[in-house]
Amino acid sequence: MTSIRELAMHLQISIGTVSRALNGKPDVNPVTRERVIAAAHELGYAPNQTGRALRRGATQTIGIMIETSSAVERNGDDFFLPVVDAAQTQLARHAYDLVILPCSSSDDVCSFLSRVVGRGIVDAIILADIRRQDPRIELLSKKGIPFLTLGRSGVSSNHAWIDLDFEGFVEHSLAELVALGHRRIAITLPQSDVNLGEMLYATYQSFLTRHQLSYDPALVMRVEQNENGGSQAVAALMALDDRPTALLLSYEAIAMGVYSELREAGLVVGQDLSVIGFRHNPQLRFLSPGLTAYEIPLAALGQALADGILAVLRGEPGPTLIWPGTLHATASIGPPPKP
Amino acid sequence: MTSIRELAMHLQISIGTVSRALNGKPDVNPVTRERVIAAAHELGYAPNQTGRALRRGATQTIGIMIETSSAVERNGDDFFLPVVDAAQTQLARHAYDLVILPCSSSDDVCSFLSRVVGRGIVDAIILADIRRQDPRIELLSKKGIPFLTLGRSGVSSNHAWIDLDFEGFVEHSLAELVALGHRRIAITLPQSDVNLGEMLYATYQSFLTRHQLSYDPALVMRVEQNENGGSQAVAALMALDDRPTALLLSYEAIAMGVYSELREAGLVVGQDLSVIGFRHNPQLRFLSPGLTAYEIPLAALGQALADGILAVLRGEPGPTLIWPGTLHATASIGPPPKP
Repeated sequence: MTSIRELAMHLQISIGTVSRALNGKPDVNPVTRERVIAAAHELGYAPNQTGRALRRGATQTIGIMIETSSAVERNGDDFFLPVVDAAQTQLARHAYDLVILPCSSSDDVCSFLSRVVGRGIVDAIILADIRRQDPRIELLSKKGIPFLTLGRSGVSSNHAWIDLDFEGFVEHSLAELVALGHRRIAITLPQSDVNLGEMLYATYQSFLTRHQLSYDPALVMRVEQNENGGSQAVAALMALDDRPTALLLSYEAIAMGVYSELREAGLVVGQDLSVIGFRHNPQLRFLSPGLTAYEIPLAALGQALADGILAVLRGEPGPTLIWPGTLHATASIGPPPKP
Repeated sequence: MTSIRELAMHLQISIGTVSRALNGKPDVNPVTRERVIAAAHELGYAPNQTGRALRRGATQTIGIMIETSSAVERNGDDFFLPVVDAAQTQLARHAYDLVILPCSSSDDVCSFLSRVVGRGIVDAIILADIRRQDPRIELLSKKGIPFLTLGRSGVSSNHAWIDLDFEGFVEHSLAELVALGHRRIAITLPQSDVNLGEMLYATYQSFLTRHQLSYDPALVMRVEQNENGGSQAVAALMALDDRPTALLLSYEAIAMGVYSELREAGLVVGQDLSVIGFRHNPQLRFLSPGLTAYEIPLAALGQALADGILAVLRGEPGPTLIWPGTLHATASIGPPPKP
């Protein structure tokens, strides 16, 4: 984090000029203004930090950081907004408000977080899109900002978190498919390094080992987390000599592409290929047959996040909680086709 | 807006107790704490307003207020996040950051906005989901908070705004359909009182009058802005004795329900019913035939919002701008079926 003084020294111009340039005053040479703004951005300038640090703890505002790139990939994300709605409702009951901190696709997550924390507008932060090695966790710990993660990292023994039951989802889904007679089961994973991808993959591998099913890397598809990824996955899997008979999805919207690609190939979901999505999503009810998926109560999750961050703010340890789901089987799964 | 002093007077307890209750200190009777929190919420308490007012103008943060209920209805909203991504990218170039202020479905828009403004965490505000009579505009004007609206209200001559070209969309679409021979054209509208609904309806009516086409209230369908609304609209329209031959949608995701309902009825999009969506949305590319819709460049819109609010912050009048779109005709429209 850079002060206005450091910015002025770096640029070799007066603090007054830097201040006028940053505040859009008209009496600054346009070329100088551009230089100042570029340097402020590059060096991570955040105004008036000392004052802000002193005021910290008084905004009664909780920030939840999201990455717009991953939300855009997931089609605008019908998971996140219901959770935010419930979290904000609960926080407002306790005289707090929630703001969403959108890190843009052009920004670095740590510079962004560091800058926003420096602005002193939030008392505590909820992080989403957690990586296995997530430097934001160390950043917030060092700065002493109370935080909670929606998702586990590799070091989540040290902080409060709530996460969905990715392991349980894979375990239940694979058990259900194996019970139906499936032996070659494919899985889609996110292309980014979010930790949920690692958890899904590790659980998938350990299940196969435990059930003495052979592992085939061709059945593990890293794809975009949307219907485009579903089309790609099915196209690739159907081109294999030894096709899988079932497919597990890391995100339910992928199912849209899976269904349409199978339909175009003249194949039937639940007969030629059994499909299990991730979350039961009412917005996918137009899929036929309905998608076998995990029912996850989002409003309750939002409330738990709010209660969790309030606990952390009170100095309590806060939750370390795997949020449960229930698998609802539909006609999107069935016995494997006869060879 | 209520101060801690007013809150204490209202509750007939000491300021110290109110403060300790709000700050979660352990030495407060739980019943008292609940009373204080309930009153703080009810009376719209925001901490430390005078101090915050003095600091205003220094957070370098712009808030964009959204209503989670309408975003949830629109399936998580794949319009909003790309716009936010681009706006945040542009603001960061000018040493500002964007935060999203999510007003929950349980909250009142004015209490929410008033509370968030009182927290002093943003220098300026972008409002979305604009109503024809939108009390938030007067609220921000009175408080002297710089603002810009994404959408016009009935009084938008007095402030900066950027809006999509709803009139142009209806005009172009109806002209295209009439040129193909359609005379009975239905339209879906939002159920809420967002001003875009009024604009779509007024343009639809004035076009019919100008082209001497009869107006039939049965062809105006106020529905949920998602695929559910599309199913309902088609079911109602197909039950009419004198069916429409074309349908104009106020939001493109409605098309999902329209397409599947028509398919179930054994009817063909573009032959039995011509359909025009609102925005060209790459996430609907699995629809077959592709949807005739307006192409609206979202990243450029986000950048324009950022530039607009920065202009307002500099004390300039700011934009009053209808954001253009281009209609792309596909096989979702064609001549009306032979009677």
